[in-house]
Amino acid sequence: MIKVGIVGYGNLGKACEGLINKENDLKLIKIFTRRDPNSFNNKNMEHLDQLEMYKDAIDVLILAIGSATDIPEMAPKIIKNFNTVDSFDNHGDIPEYYKKIDIIAKKNKKCAFISTGWDPGLFSLNRLISESILTQGHTYTFWGKGVSQGHSDAVRKLEGVIDAVQYTVPKINILENIKNEKRDLKSYETHTREVFVVVEDKVNKNLIEEKIKSMENYFDLYDTTVHFISKSEFDKNHKGIPHGGHVIRVGETLNNNKELYHLSLDLESNPEFTAAINLACVRATYRYIKLGAYGAHTILDTPPNYYSNMTLDRIIERYL
Amino acid sequence: MIKVGIVGYGNLGKACEGLINKENDLKLIKIFTRRDPNSFNNKNMEHLDQLEMYKDAIDVLILAIGSATDIPEMAPKIIKNFNTVDSFDNHGDIPEYYKKIDIIAKKNKKCAFISTGWDPGLFSLNRLISESILTQGHTYTFWGKGVSQGHSDAVRKLEGVIDAVQYTVPKINILENIKNEKRDLKSYETHTREVFVVVEDKVNKNLIEEKIKSMENYFDLYDTTVHFISKSEFDKNHKGIPHGGHVIRVGETLNNNKELYHLSLDLESNPEFTAAINLACVRATYRYIKLGAYGAHTILDTPPNYYSNMTLDRIIERYL
Repeated sequence: MIKVGIVGYGNLGKACEGLINKENDLKLIKIFTRRDPNSFNNKNMEHLDQLEMYKDAIDVLILAIGSATDIPEMAPKIIKNFNTVDSFDNHGDIPEYYKKIDIIAKKNKKCAFISTGWDPGLFSLNRLISESILTQGHTYTFWGKGVSQGHSDAVRKLEGVIDAVQYTVPKINILENIKNEKRDLKSYETHTREVFVVVEDKVNKNLIEEKIKSMENYFDLYDTTVHFISKSEFDKNHKGIPHGGHVIRVGETLNNNKELYHLSLDLESNPEFTAAINLACVRATYRYIKLGAYGAHTILDTPPNYYSNMTLDRIIERYL
Repeated sequence: MIKVGIVGYGNLGKACEGLINKENDLKLIKIFTRRDPNSFNNKNMEHLDQLEMYKDAIDVLILAIGSATDIPEMAPKIIKNFNTVDSFDNHGDIPEYYKKIDIIAKKNKKCAFISTGWDPGLFSLNRLISESILTQGHTYTFWGKGVSQGHSDAVRKLEGVIDAVQYTVPKINILENIKNEKRDLKSYETHTREVFVVVEDKVNKNLIEEKIKSMENYFDLYDTTVHFISKSEFDKNHKGIPHGGHVIRVGETLNNNKELYHLSLDLESNPEFTAAINLACVRATYRYIKLGAYGAHTILDTPPNYYSNMTLDRIIERYL
């Protein structure tokens, strides 16, 4: 049994808790929160202040906290005492984060599996593998149809908006004819954005729509559609957190032959799928601990059999 | 530059030759054949008898030879002197082959990357990864639309048949509704077989069709369609070697949420794509050599960054 802790109790933390309880080889020790642990009806809750007391009781700690400020601030301290798995997803900052964490983890003889999930994560892995095989060609990433939390938040902050959700939608006609594409495509060329908004009675809907569509970096370059709906319709149809996407490599081999490599995900719950990836990485981290392979690790340099609790002989027999 | 040799000059060997010549980090040394090397108009050909003379001149040798008898007979001998990449694909025999090759390679301080390609190979990798993440669920493999060499050969052997090709075709309606499937499916439930045959003028076509459809283990359990066509139509439309397929994991997380993981390949040339995978594995094998990681390796236990010639820092920057 791998003894697992969770820091953070948002969508991801809750999904990790639920999934750990379904696995025979993982045991949940505690969930650490900055809120009052007694405010939850859950005996596993513990205040984050108590974390260090558990350093010998937990094999791997999942950092189910935000990438904007929480992970960069908290992870470097936590990793001094714990082996960790995190989903740090600020693509541009990952190389620096990797180097920093690698140094701290090695110094303290800890293992840190960083930036896992599906993008960064599985999508990164498939971009690497498909481009390593098909060295000539183009790679396309499509996201959606799914909820973008950042875009939904941006709309919710507008005055007069009660609730809002933004779906990123890939352009199906481009996706289906990707084999004939000859150049790299920008994200705003391959996606539309669909917004469902609940507004206060007296607001000017045209003005709200215009404010949304002109929002720089969020919507201005995209083909955006805004739907005004009632609170009851919103609660009925737009409370789920579906997502998904596609990584496609269109490669050329010889004689102008084209080879298409296509990974797609269709997720009814983005946080639950992300949590499932985190648990596979908990197993990999446990392998690294047993091997004494201290430092930072990612999905790009981890032997795939480490995600499974089976022996390599059994894995070869079953999968190869 | 990695110095590469090829044993065998069929479809796979030729594709490897063509692709090596397009890569900056690979250099083709020789292609070894059991036929008369002078019968080819190709200065790279060498007789297989001369192989051992090249043991210090070649870093990695690709075994582009058959799995039925050639690889099992020849690989154990060749690996005493060479680091190798092979596409041994007899699924049932792979575990034993792995153990045998591992012992020989370790004893002789060689590295052997075995059973690569797309199935076994990429499909195996995606079955492992998707099942390690989505531990509850069902996995489905579809092959095609593509040419099955074994089934084509079986039809060609019938009396009165001049030429034949067999396409394995996945049932699209099952594929598109796989999320609602609740059980494992047999290959004959999920595929049909389509045969295009050129026959001699005087044969009884009904008899040929019946012979094909009743062929045990090949066609008897499948929904099979037979088309009789002219030699000219055959040569015009059925000389390519397309293939492809799908690995799909339908997983359940919490609250009955379903998560769909779907890898698909759509290949205009099966041997060229397989060759491209072989070259990525040549790079991985070269990494293993440099690390002194002697023995047998597979796509299931190889860190993905080994397939690329970039440094890990660069890979993390580019892909994560």
